[in-house]
Amino acid sequence: MDKLLNDLVAIVGPEGVLLGDDVSQRSVDWFTGAPCRAKAIVRPRDTEQLSRVMALCYQADQPVVTHGGMTGIVHGGEASPEELVVSLELMNRIEDIDSVGSTLQVQAGATLQHVQEAAAEIDMQFPLDLGARGSCTIGGNIATNAGGIRVIRYGMMRQQVLGLEAVLSDGTVVSSLNKMLKNNAGYDLKQLFIGSEGTLGIVTRAVLRLQPHMPSEQTALVAVPSFDALTQLLGLVSQELANSLSAFEALWNNHYKLMTTESGKHTPLLADDSPFYAIIETLGLDDERDAEHFSQVLQKALEAGLITDAVLANSRAQRQVIWAIREDIEVLVKELKPMFSYDVSLPIPHMDAYVELLEQGLKAQWPQVGKMVVFGHLGDGNLHIMITVRDDSPESRRQVEQLVYTPLKEYGGSVSAEHGIGLEKRDYLSICRSSEEIALMKRMKTALDPKGLLNPGKVVALD
Amino acid sequence: MDKLLNDLVAIVGPEGVLLGDDVSQRSVDWFTGAPCRAKAIVRPRDTEQLSRVMALCYQADQPVVTHGGMTGIVHGGEASPEELVVSLELMNRIEDIDSVGSTLQVQAGATLQHVQEAAAEIDMQFPLDLGARGSCTIGGNIATNAGGIRVIRYGMMRQQVLGLEAVLSDGTVVSSLNKMLKNNAGYDLKQLFIGSEGTLGIVTRAVLRLQPHMPSEQTALVAVPSFDALTQLLGLVSQELANSLSAFEALWNNHYKLMTTESGKHTPLLADDSPFYAIIETLGLDDERDAEHFSQVLQKALEAGLITDAVLANSRAQRQVIWAIREDIEVLVKELKPMFSYDVSLPIPHMDAYVELLEQGLKAQWPQVGKMVVFGHLGDGNLHIMITVRDDSPESRRQVEQLVYTPLKEYGGSVSAEHGIGLEKRDYLSICRSSEEIALMKRMKTALDPKGLLNPGKVVALD
Repeated sequence: MDKLLNDLVAIVGPEGVLLGDDVSQRSVDWFTGAPCRAKAIVRPRDTEQLSRVMALCYQADQPVVTHGGMTGIVHGGEASPEELVVSLELMNRIEDIDSVGSTLQVQAGATLQHVQEAAAEIDMQFPLDLGARGSCTIGGNIATNAGGIRVIRYGMMRQQVLGLEAVLSDGTVVSSLNKMLKNNAGYDLKQLFIGSEGTLGIVTRAVLRLQPHMPSEQTALVAVPSFDALTQLLGLVSQELANSLSAFEALWNNHYKLMTTESGKHTPLLADDSPFYAIIETLGLDDERDAEHFSQVLQKALEAGLITDAVLANSRAQRQVIWAIREDIEVLVKELKPMFSYDVSLPIPHMDAYVELLEQGLKAQWPQVGKMVVFGHLGDGNLHIMITVRDDSPESRRQVEQLVYTPLKEYGGSVSAEHGIGLEKRDYLSICRSSEEIALMKRMKTALDPKGLLNPGKVVALD
Repeated sequence: MDKLLNDLVAIVGPEGVLLGDDVSQRSVDWFTGAPCRAKAIVRPRDTEQLSRVMALCYQADQPVVTHGGMTGIVHGGEASPEELVVSLELMNRIEDIDSVGSTLQVQAGATLQHVQEAAAEIDMQFPLDLGARGSCTIGGNIATNAGGIRVIRYGMMRQQVLGLEAVLSDGTVVSSLNKMLKNNAGYDLKQLFIGSEGTLGIVTRAVLRLQPHMPSEQTALVAVPSFDALTQLLGLVSQELANSLSAFEALWNNHYKLMTTESGKHTPLLADDSPFYAIIETLGLDDERDAEHFSQVLQKALEAGLITDAVLANSRAQRQVIWAIREDIEVLVKELKPMFSYDVSLPIPHMDAYVELLEQGLKAQWPQVGKMVVFGHLGDGNLHIMITVRDDSPESRRQVEQLVYTPLKEYGGSVSAEHGIGLEKRDYLSICRSSEEIALMKRMKTALDPKGLLNPGKVVALD
């Protein structure tokens, strides 16, 4: 064991440093199961230990990759044999919960679900929600500015964070554990660390904002006859359900069909021949009143020809049946093997043309095997696109990426809506960010991490 | 005219450069009317002109102070005779408005009211709102991360900005005019410029997020028997009116009394002997249904003893009568002459003790003349405190500042909730920000403005 590892053990104890099989048995990619190749995994128990770890690494010019729940899919957690992984897994405590101030203070390694449950215990809610809730961590949610299914109502992770604490590359602890909704005393430093994927600092603790619990959930799956109707429907429900609309998820026909009749995995609650489907959900306080209003609005949409059929959930179980059609990613992974997964955003008016262009390109290049499904958070301008060409060679991957990303430039879209950049999308960053923007990112990276030790090569590469 | 001014005229034309009386007739402080002392005011017509102006200033080491609507009250716009003012007043055009995407693109010099009206024209709303709406500009709202009366429902200016364009100190144009709700492609650069008070770059254009228009407004003024009842009332209405609560403003007895019976300027809608008052407002879609629900919730509060009396507005005129008690700042300026104005935030549970401490301190130091009134956005943890000791000498000002700011450290509060730091609060920044935080702010300032030319000395002073 080299000197640095010995020194690290002296800080975090022998159980705080994992080596050999304990490292390689961990995966850095839940799609492929690729093993972690880092020289060691260091697990500090508190901020002070991490600060000392980072001060050592800074002295030794040791690059560091931070691990949260490892549910990311852009290779943000990949580590080379020369790199050290810092895992926040032993820092998973909820430190404080305040129902008057509606705040919860938590260590970065706690899972999202743990926080959601703690909020529920005091009859409040932590509104960020995504499929990986049981594994993903608050630190990871912050580092990637996680999105999920309720962004349309509550915003992304950035909006849920009131304060945070981070350790810089040299071990400096910057503690900004603000608990107030309003604080304009100088630069809002937390913004630096939210969404920068561990490249500017390591988030250790956070103060999160809680929201009132919403006991009434209304959920419907509707069939939509055209893309034009889909955007009009979004406009209608945004207006009529404005205060309570919490999700507007669109499923293209190819997605709905694969999840239901083609795979046989989920019941086709509505006939599978509609061009589009949408899942609409509201969160409110009065179940009876909300249910009545919700069905009135759907009736209005039906009369206006914006939907052709609808099924409303009458129970928690029925809600889950509807959501499973949207969330059961394992069906996609199996049916579209080997699968390429994309997460783009673009202005809603351009979406239809973009998807059409993509379909044509796929058909032209892979007429036999090319297959794609499209779904996503339409209300947020965010599409998820899953593509297979039955071959995951680097060349095929590169060709499909070109197909997916290149048109986004013209449409003013983004190569990443909510998954981040990591390593996977770094070479495509210039499609949606100008050279001045990328230069400014590099300037920030150099200012905060002058030796380039934090998650090196992710998001932006320093020359 | 020196060479720099000549070169500036060549860029922006003679009408783009103001000199002499045209400069000194402008005020940099609407409380005192203090004149602008800058060597000139430069008024670019577009981003390209500003970029060329800044490149020249960079070359000449010329410091620059940016002016928006000049409604700030922390001396953020003060300029010395050696400094140049850049005013965005000729860049006030709304460039694009999109009802499908719910976005509005605007130049930084447009007033808030102009934007609000443009949104209303397409039956939507721009929800940021504050008393200075007719004069303050979008660029200023962004630079100061403006708050106002609807933060509890819609968040501060930061939450309304989807994208922006800024010019750096060397003239580089960083255009991040993102129109999407979700964009995790690299660092979120707009956050650098929001709330940094013109010290990191000059905001030239922005893409703002619009919200559905809410035709139904319910407003009540209520009398509250104790601070404990006030926080319970906030809890009750946050829960019961969760989806629609848009304002929860608290008035301490000293404020209500001064605005009504003492000054004789506003009708005391409720008897003036209650320890606290609150203005509660909701925004919704269905006036009849909302009104019924609103009065049910108030009835519940009455039965629980959280309020002792209430008056509900039945018309727009009545709403204005209620809000005038809260918003008519001119009564305060007149009655508390010379007035010191403070804007602090602190965790709600500590507010009562804090205000009591302040009152005692004021009475002890100025038993005859000391007078204060307290009101604010209780739901946001934000108090406005107006104090007079009938003397505005620098020593008295300093003494009152000590009284107001010092206890905030212990309570975990902030010396600025929404007004910013400017020059006025810079020396108190360390009360609520750690030395590591201030060091990081300076590191960012140095990275983005290496010559220290942008709004020098404001927010943080470089050594």
